[in-house]
Amino acid sequence: MLSSIMVCTVAVIGAGPSGLTSIKSCLDEGLEPTCFESSDDIGGLWRFKEHPDPGRANIYQSVIINSSKEMMSYSDFPPPAHLPNNMHHPQLLSYLRLYAQTFDLFKHIYFQTTVVSVRQRPDFPVSGQWEVETERREGQREIQVFDAVMVCTGHFTQPHLPLNDFPGIEEFEGRYFHSWEYLSAEGLQGKRVVVVGIGNSGGDIAVDASRVAEQVYLSTRKGAWVVSRVGAGGLPGDLVGTSRLDRLVQKLFPSWITMMMEKKLNRTFDHRLYGLQPKHRFFAQIPVVNDDLPGRIISGRVLVKPNIREIKGSSVVFEDGSVVEKVDVVVFATGYNYDFPFLPSGLLTNGGHRLCLYRHVFPPGLARPSLAVVGFICNLGAINPLAEMQARWAIHVFKGLLTLPSQEAMLQDIKRDTSTLQNRFACLERHPLQVDHIPYMDSMAEELGVRPNLLGLLLREPGVGLRVLLGPCTPYQYRLRGPGQWDGARQAILTQWERVAQPFRTRMPPQPESRTRTSSSLILTLSGTVLLLTTFYTRHSLSSLPTGLLYKIYSLPEIIWGWK
Amino acid sequence: MLSSIMVCTVAVIGAGPSGLTSIKSCLDEGLEPTCFESSDDIGGLWRFKEHPDPGRANIYQSVIINSSKEMMSYSDFPPPAHLPNNMHHPQLLSYLRLYAQTFDLFKHIYFQTTVVSVRQRPDFPVSGQWEVETERREGQREIQVFDAVMVCTGHFTQPHLPLNDFPGIEEFEGRYFHSWEYLSAEGLQGKRVVVVGIGNSGGDIAVDASRVAEQVYLSTRKGAWVVSRVGAGGLPGDLVGTSRLDRLVQKLFPSWITMMMEKKLNRTFDHRLYGLQPKHRFFAQIPVVNDDLPGRIISGRVLVKPNIREIKGSSVVFEDGSVVEKVDVVVFATGYNYDFPFLPSGLLTNGGHRLCLYRHVFPPGLARPSLAVVGFICNLGAINPLAEMQARWAIHVFKGLLTLPSQEAMLQDIKRDTSTLQNRFACLERHPLQVDHIPYMDSMAEELGVRPNLLGLLLREPGVGLRVLLGPCTPYQYRLRGPGQWDGARQAILTQWERVAQPFRTRMPPQPESRTRTSSSLILTLSGTVLLLTTFYTRHSLSSLPTGLLYKIYSLPEIIWGWK
Repeated sequence: MLSSIMVCTVAVIGAGPSGLTSIKSCLDEGLEPTCFESSDDIGGLWRFKEHPDPGRANIYQSVIINSSKEMMSYSDFPPPAHLPNNMHHPQLLSYLRLYAQTFDLFKHIYFQTTVVSVRQRPDFPVSGQWEVETERREGQREIQVFDAVMVCTGHFTQPHLPLNDFPGIEEFEGRYFHSWEYLSAEGLQGKRVVVVGIGNSGGDIAVDASRVAEQVYLSTRKGAWVVSRVGAGGLPGDLVGTSRLDRLVQKLFPSWITMMMEKKLNRTFDHRLYGLQPKHRFFAQIPVVNDDLPGRIISGRVLVKPNIREIKGSSVVFEDGSVVEKVDVVVFATGYNYDFPFLPSGLLTNGGHRLCLYRHVFPPGLARPSLAVVGFICNLGAINPLAEMQARWAIHVFKGLLTLPSQEAMLQDIKRDTSTLQNRFACLERHPLQVDHIPYMDSMAEELGVRPNLLGLLLREPGVGLRVLLGPCTPYQYRLRGPGQWDGARQAILTQWERVAQPFRTRMPPQPESRTRTSSSLILTLSGTVLLLTTFYTRHSLSSLPTGLLYKIYSLPEIIWGWK
Repeated sequence: MLSSIMVCTVAVIGAGPSGLTSIKSCLDEGLEPTCFESSDDIGGLWRFKEHPDPGRANIYQSVIINSSKEMMSYSDFPPPAHLPNNMHHPQLLSYLRLYAQTFDLFKHIYFQTTVVSVRQRPDFPVSGQWEVETERREGQREIQVFDAVMVCTGHFTQPHLPLNDFPGIEEFEGRYFHSWEYLSAEGLQGKRVVVVGIGNSGGDIAVDASRVAEQVYLSTRKGAWVVSRVGAGGLPGDLVGTSRLDRLVQKLFPSWITMMMEKKLNRTFDHRLYGLQPKHRFFAQIPVVNDDLPGRIISGRVLVKPNIREIKGSSVVFEDGSVVEKVDVVVFATGYNYDFPFLPSGLLTNGGHRLCLYRHVFPPGLARPSLAVVGFICNLGAINPLAEMQARWAIHVFKGLLTLPSQEAMLQDIKRDTSTLQNRFACLERHPLQVDHIPYMDSMAEELGVRPNLLGLLLREPGVGLRVLLGPCTPYQYRLRGPGQWDGARQAILTQWERVAQPFRTRMPPQPESRTRTSSSLILTLSGTVLLLTTFYTRHSLSSLPTGLLYKIYSLPEIIWGWK
């Protein structure tokens, strides 16, 4: 029995968002985590560095998280109410710091300590133990033995710079670099800039640079669907239309929902008119999140261009034959490769376009499931709650509370899963780590025994139940029951819209005379429900409900709450 | 008879957008314009200056015109198709330059020549002539006599800096300046910035600064309605829902349209939630045009604050008692005063909150109507077409082709007009120059004989007539007939949507296989009509039409045109 081995010590590699929640999850389950962090602070990706370090994730000064705070929080640590819904990187870092302080995680972290290698001990098939060799900044090396290892090094560390796809780039007369190196628009004043790739970085950098550059060209091979952080009524876009019921409707009527979603986005701005229309349908790829791009395109500050065919001196030739001359800078926002140089070669093998990991966590070829990769994934929302769920799940596997299937079964599952993803997502080769949020979370939560019992909730606590069904699928839902249950979860769910509203309250507009402000908890519960229903109907049923009625529903929270 | 005097020579003061079209209009009517421009180039406001000159309008590096190109163009000079819909200032300047070159206006302009004084000649009651004294940069003075004067110096030259309203500002430990001095976000990196006032400058500067500042606070006493340049479907916002039919519906059902408009804006983002909700209704003040503000607010990069109560050292205390500490910079985006130092004192008197000018053009107290103020006005759209119409109208008055009413009648009219404006617009004291675009243009056009004959057009040329009725009220409509009729006007109207689409065509997205592209002129006309109907219904009837049908209507142009 694999479960008979006593796991006590866990090496956590990296103190970014995934590492922190891994430490916390270890502590919750009575394990002894030791975290190795090569830099001198927590935060990983989210710590802005004036000078990017090779091998480390990097962000630009203007970066704002795509997910709203209620969707990116850890499940037992709702973000402080005053924080904005979409945080600028220093605020996100402050949230991570608060998490680490609150749960006393710092004392488990060795900073300036790089993991050089992770090797199976000779008795691995029996003990499942690992030798972890670390090197401190001063050069001091050390080998320690751990019962398990959690790899939390992320996937934004190795810039993917496919120069071979851009003939002539080596003789380019201007400057070129990968988006990983981009810090701010400083130095781009008055320049002619070509940004290659319309991922989130490409879109952000194009917008950022366009504020100071003479002209920005945004080159995209495939186009993209662009969504705004600002959703219906100004609510965070990822809180509206992302409920469990939404998911159910999407599953039942996938093409209808896809069509509705695309119509909705095209009502905001016609993706064909704006030259962004991709071949793939909306749900086939994680969309680009960008609030400013339409405004930059209509003003011509950003010109959308097709893929680059070649580069000639200082000119860039695009695939439609058009030429942009006197280009000063080319920024390659061409994504990232992944690399785990410290792991035994062959441990993490490719399975098609992705790493061969069972549930994106466990390499299936090991005699003992004592090594887990955490946070090596992406979806429409934030990685934090996914990483946390992975960590909780992996630790249950470490402890033998959950048993993994046989190697063959796992390989089979990865194959099946990859094939599903290939059917589900376009361009999987460039985005191999995509999953659907709710199904992925639920599948792990089910095994852990923390998946919310919807029917029970609706019967016993309809206020919570309705929110779980109709509201955004916030991470607190996975702390309502089972191992790791948190007493604050109910309250966190009941007050989530309040935390959304709070940061906006920096100026109280004059109240219209005709309305009185009521705030009894009954009305709050009722109005919460109405708001949830509202967001659902606003999102999906604009075409099926008589819109007069829709307006009535839409206005109800305003009438009841005062703020909406 | 006033009309018996032969007007030949006209002094045009200023070579900005109003001055240029005044020169052009003089030439069209056989007059001899002489333009005096104190700087060394045309463009006025729209020429970016690295070092702002006192007494001259100034813009910031990132400024983009709020109006789309079809709405801001001169009536006989459609903008080149390739220009973006909302131009960055160098492009707008290039359009003005092209206009000046095409109509050979440069030779009528004396650069580096400041008008020192404009005085009535002793025989003014008979001759209507003016002595214009100018000074060249080298100090050389000259006096010339003109039959008429057109004052085109604009209203963004004298910063309004009401320091008395901000107790403690004199001891403020940081830096403060008027938005007139703002050039770019350079120097605001990492600073804590308070922007006072949410006019267009205030909104722009807050967004601009928020890209680099540590934190931006946007202080507003009254709040504002915020509209985006990007309108329904990504079309320029000022082209959608601004037709003559829209205007008619608005006139017939003013409160319904106001409510619909506010609902629509609140669906984009709830102005109450975002702390921006003003007391005044939508049409009661020119809204703030800003594409990025909602995204900057949801991310907390811009925090909306109430009015400032006082300043203490480096802290700013707001009227709700909240305090922001360690403020580095306060930017006063508090608007402009007007000043005409070269005119005889008492000529331009205040009439309530505005200048006492008949139709915003003629001082009523003159014995001869030979001095006109052009472009001293604002509305929802661009000033250019308004200034052009004023110039055409004023020149007809100069020439005696139109007769002004008696002084008493003009004063009566100004009083009536002011009172109408006061009922119509909130906060008139800060925005005394507001007019409604179509009624103002039409009233002058009617007298000039250039107001489009809608019924005749609909009967004779339904393609043009429908566009004039249902499409955006582009300036070309005022060149279809009467004096100054332009043969290209019909074509300009028929092709206006084409010019809107052209700048977007920088990447042609893959065509869906199932549709074929047709472009026969019949279908173009039909689809144009459908698009106009569509934009109308999208704008107004979202709540009354079954939305299934709405989608069908909405999709028709896409099906027929391919691009929409």
